[in-house]
Amino acid sequence: MNKFIIGIDIGGTNAPCAILSGDGKIINMLEKKTLAEGGVKEVIKSFVDSINELKTLEKDKKIEAIGIGAPGTLNHKTRTIITSPNLPHWKDIPIVDMIQKEVNIPVFLDNDANCAVMAEHWLGNAKGTKNVVLMTLGTGIGGGIIINNEIYRGSHGSAGEIGHTTISSKGTKCSCGNFGCLEAYASANATLRRAKEKLKRNDIKSSLLKLKLSDITSLTIYEEAEKGDRFSQDLLKETGTYLGIGIANIANTFDPDVILIGGGFSEASKYLIPAAIDEAYKRSFKPIMDRIEVKKVALGNMAGLIGAGKLALNSL
Amino acid sequence: MNKFIIGIDIGGTNAPCAILSGDGKIINMLEKKTLAEGGVKEVIKSFVDSINELKTLEKDKKIEAIGIGAPGTLNHKTRTIITSPNLPHWKDIPIVDMIQKEVNIPVFLDNDANCAVMAEHWLGNAKGTKNVVLMTLGTGIGGGIIINNEIYRGSHGSAGEIGHTTISSKGTKCSCGNFGCLEAYASANATLRRAKEKLKRNDIKSSLLKLKLSDITSLTIYEEAEKGDRFSQDLLKETGTYLGIGIANIANTFDPDVILIGGGFSEASKYLIPAAIDEAYKRSFKPIMDRIEVKKVALGNMAGLIGAGKLALNSL
Repeated sequence: MNKFIIGIDIGGTNAPCAILSGDGKIINMLEKKTLAEGGVKEVIKSFVDSINELKTLEKDKKIEAIGIGAPGTLNHKTRTIITSPNLPHWKDIPIVDMIQKEVNIPVFLDNDANCAVMAEHWLGNAKGTKNVVLMTLGTGIGGGIIINNEIYRGSHGSAGEIGHTTISSKGTKCSCGNFGCLEAYASANATLRRAKEKLKRNDIKSSLLKLKLSDITSLTIYEEAEKGDRFSQDLLKETGTYLGIGIANIANTFDPDVILIGGGFSEASKYLIPAAIDEAYKRSFKPIMDRIEVKKVALGNMAGLIGAGKLALNSL
Repeated sequence: MNKFIIGIDIGGTNAPCAILSGDGKIINMLEKKTLAEGGVKEVIKSFVDSINELKTLEKDKKIEAIGIGAPGTLNHKTRTIITSPNLPHWKDIPIVDMIQKEVNIPVFLDNDANCAVMAEHWLGNAKGTKNVVLMTLGTGIGGGIIINNEIYRGSHGSAGEIGHTTISSKGTKCSCGNFGCLEAYASANATLRRAKEKLKRNDIKSSLLKLKLSDITSLTIYEEAEKGDRFSQDLLKETGTYLGIGIANIANTFDPDVILIGGGFSEASKYLIPAAIDEAYKRSFKPIMDRIEVKKVALGNMAGLIGAGKLALNSL
């Protein structure tokens, strides 16, 4: 496995770039900011600089391919980022060709959730399994699917939009325009919205009230839950209950070996997952649920980066 | 393709058995009743009799395998019917071994929805496509999934329970015990239930009112719709709207080439499908929906039988 590749995980804020060995070990990593507010050319240039810096730092290692994980809607044929919620000015950006031209190494692009599930299947909590569904909980909810040991992208590259499946037909409006999407209930943003709505009432006791409403984030809710704030704990469990509806739907549809919970908000898994499993049992066939594992990802926020590397590796 | 197989499609009422050629042509078919109220042994004997009758009728054709499509929960490893809604006394029936022992021909068993989607992919409206999801609308709602040209059964044989995905978290109670399942809104039974609830009110005008409430079936609703009854037409369109939520969820999750609508209640597709497509567009990403075909099955009530034959053929 004496092969080396570069993985890049483009997030809304950070875009770590790393050289990985053929067995998925991170040899050298640069912690870069995405700088999404800059022009597209500037951002691309910073990726090219990172790649060149890594090549200089690890001179003796020949880089055979580069994998990029990016959020949003991608076109696999033209290898472009069509739109991305975290990169607001990016529209139809042929990122693969733009980078490849500069560095003269083959570049490959996939969705960040697809990269994360590939990494978990390769080296994480889905290792040795055949069928996997991963949900990334963050601002929104993404999904990555592995069927028969291979990433499943659908017929037109858009499979896995699990966050935008309807779980409550007359429910809360989602950012996508639909009503009652899973994302509108079980994402970090949905939790934050519910927290703020409740905190505006007069009958709530919570240590969150010591903060300005505008300073509360899904992270502060988790932190206060960890310090013992009952309101924050209950709120996260409520989110877990909604997440459980999504899990039951995945179980009844896919009957996978494992359902993984990833993304930044999965930090709160301690509260989310037990509540989710309880609800999933109520909404699925017990013999099916009994055989499906539901757990947090193993690779944490490195999953996207490692999966981007695997994407590059698969091309060799 | 000079191979011959037998297909059997076990329904709640009928169980047609046929000899098929290797290219899916029905050579000779026996229209049999399932006789589910008889004892298991009696039912199995009637299938064995049918197989022997077909062999006698087509003496010059060597039957190489037998495929059976059955409703309900199956165990693929032990090749048994665990439970079946349409065969109420059947529990843990090793149907494959029971028949195989008598006829000395290899027997294969699969879910009826899986058989139907296999048939449509082979010879029907999903021919030439790669990823397909079929919904069977009847008393309940079943699902058959083809991924990368192969039937997808999940890790434990239970994938495709699309009828029991939650579309309305606090909604109507389903026969499975959960609240808000797609089946509780978009099946023939759900339509009939809504019809009866509405017809009990005093303000409804409908030609269905000339019938006794207990004589109304999903078929009579369709027939009255066809004769111009506005109430029946609107009722079917309402069901189509619910079906559209299921279609949108399938689109956003699987991004398949085609979503097929089968089962007995798909007779009413003329009303169901246009309403379903309208709703699916509201609840999914337009660029995804634009590329997915939604249509009725091509093989009608022969899909299960032909798919059972394909199952047998695949084993050779």
